[in-house]
Amino acid sequence: MKRRIGYLGPAGTFSEQAAKAVFTGNASSDCNLYGTIQECLFAVKNKSIDYAVVPIENSIGGAVDITLDWLVHEIKVPIQGEMQLPISYELLAHSQQVNTASYGAIYGHPQALKQCNHYLGTNYKNLEQEPVESSAMAAQIVAEKPDQPVLALANRRTRQLYDLSTVDKKIENNAENRTRFIVLGNEAIDLPSEKMKSTMVVSFPENDLMVLRSVLEVLEMAGLKPLKMESIPMKRKLGEYVFIIDLDTTEKGAAFNQVCDDIRALNCGLRHLGSYPLKIVK
Amino acid sequence: MKRRIGYLGPAGTFSEQAAKAVFTGNASSDCNLYGTIQECLFAVKNKSIDYAVVPIENSIGGAVDITLDWLVHEIKVPIQGEMQLPISYELLAHSQQVNTASYGAIYGHPQALKQCNHYLGTNYKNLEQEPVESSAMAAQIVAEKPDQPVLALANRRTRQLYDLSTVDKKIENNAENRTRFIVLGNEAIDLPSEKMKSTMVVSFPENDLMVLRSVLEVLEMAGLKPLKMESIPMKRKLGEYVFIIDLDTTEKGAAFNQVCDDIRALNCGLRHLGSYPLKIVK
Repeated sequence: MKRRIGYLGPAGTFSEQAAKAVFTGNASSDCNLYGTIQECLFAVKNKSIDYAVVPIENSIGGAVDITLDWLVHEIKVPIQGEMQLPISYELLAHSQQVNTASYGAIYGHPQALKQCNHYLGTNYKNLEQEPVESSAMAAQIVAEKPDQPVLALANRRTRQLYDLSTVDKKIENNAENRTRFIVLGNEAIDLPSEKMKSTMVVSFPENDLMVLRSVLEVLEMAGLKPLKMESIPMKRKLGEYVFIIDLDTTEKGAAFNQVCDDIRALNCGLRHLGSYPLKIVK
Repeated sequence: MKRRIGYLGPAGTFSEQAAKAVFTGNASSDCNLYGTIQECLFAVKNKSIDYAVVPIENSIGGAVDITLDWLVHEIKVPIQGEMQLPISYELLAHSQQVNTASYGAIYGHPQALKQCNHYLGTNYKNLEQEPVESSAMAAQIVAEKPDQPVLALANRRTRQLYDLSTVDKKIENNAENRTRFIVLGNEAIDLPSEKMKSTMVVSFPENDLMVLRSVLEVLEMAGLKPLKMESIPMKRKLGEYVFIIDLDTTEKGAAFNQVCDDIRALNCGLRHLGSYPLKIVK
């Protein structure tokens, strides 16, 4: 049976690139493209797909709020893998508009606009910014407007897919720009990797943040290093937070299970979001 | 000399309500209304205003990213006060559209749309959501479109200001919805309060999150309780984070100074963003 994979469309998104990098070489799969990350998450929650591949963090733009929110508040499907990709943007125009003296608007994903704001602020200060759901959608819109002086902020693959021309490239604030994607699904996947990560959501008794000190002590005793700790609002009252904690659990599976028990013994709430292989594309 | 106050406009925003609550009873002031939070922060950075009053956190929507980003990465102006307001939304229509059977679009601030998404998802599932810079702007747009079946998500004061009609009210996900506003400026303000807060930004040597354990130990020894800890990406590489820590420093001014020294002695980076009175409007 073919596996049903879902990610943010249209064709050419970074999410598609991540999904293909994860599922290449695996059994054949059906691809489902969604208009928003939320719809994609909803589809895996409702089992209309087997796996969702969604962005969770970018090195410049920071957390992808919608994904974190769903992980903490909406969805019980575990994380089965992580894929890190390098991200680079090009400024694309329709071939009829490539020598235009002055552009009026730029289409781009809000995160992409954020990741390129130094360049845009310096070189295209008066451009109207039009946020859209994905970089590939930005390219698609520009391809459909040959007679308008508009630009897309998108990746190299969409240039070919939508037959656009490059006005400038590598315009992101930081050359080391990368995005983390996670794979959500109920069955493990085959992702060859030397690294294993585990992710947990921890809440504290009476919201006492000082208990985090004891949580870190438990981790230190077990030799487990937090790769990341991120605060997420509980969405009930001001000042109520949970923490998403990523751990490097390569060869530490048994220690991890003990750590979960020890943290629960501190009267913390703890949900294990998954233990999974991590693959990094250079 | 009149003090120059800046906040997010147009007239009727929650920010205006916060600014008026802070500066009422003080010396007279000139009000400057900005189209975006970013422009308002830029104005106080460049000293074209003396004080900016900007939202920093909502109990449902979470952090106001742009404000946190600027505090950590862009601005050196200290926090001089905090104001917490209750937040409630109404669904507003032009009086000519109040009995319309089916609306086509709703204008609202992205945070407001987020804070009311349960109600909107249940009652107005097919409404096109149009994100705008402020709730008051949503009301203003609807006021200018008497012949269109559109709605605004805004507060009670904008209903009166823009002469709109209420379709429904108290539609936020959570009845305890509140927003924290901070006052940024170079001089202290007179804000009568029994509570003092201090805010610091802490980074860890070699990004080792385990050092947070020692930071919490320093705070515990000094009897200082973290009210909030929030992770903010450094925007250089994946996994590099700083933490914004809010402390209750009522009657703890001396202890706080010692704590800053002790945390720096751990080889942490530490920036003190301000020690300031907190006022809560019930």
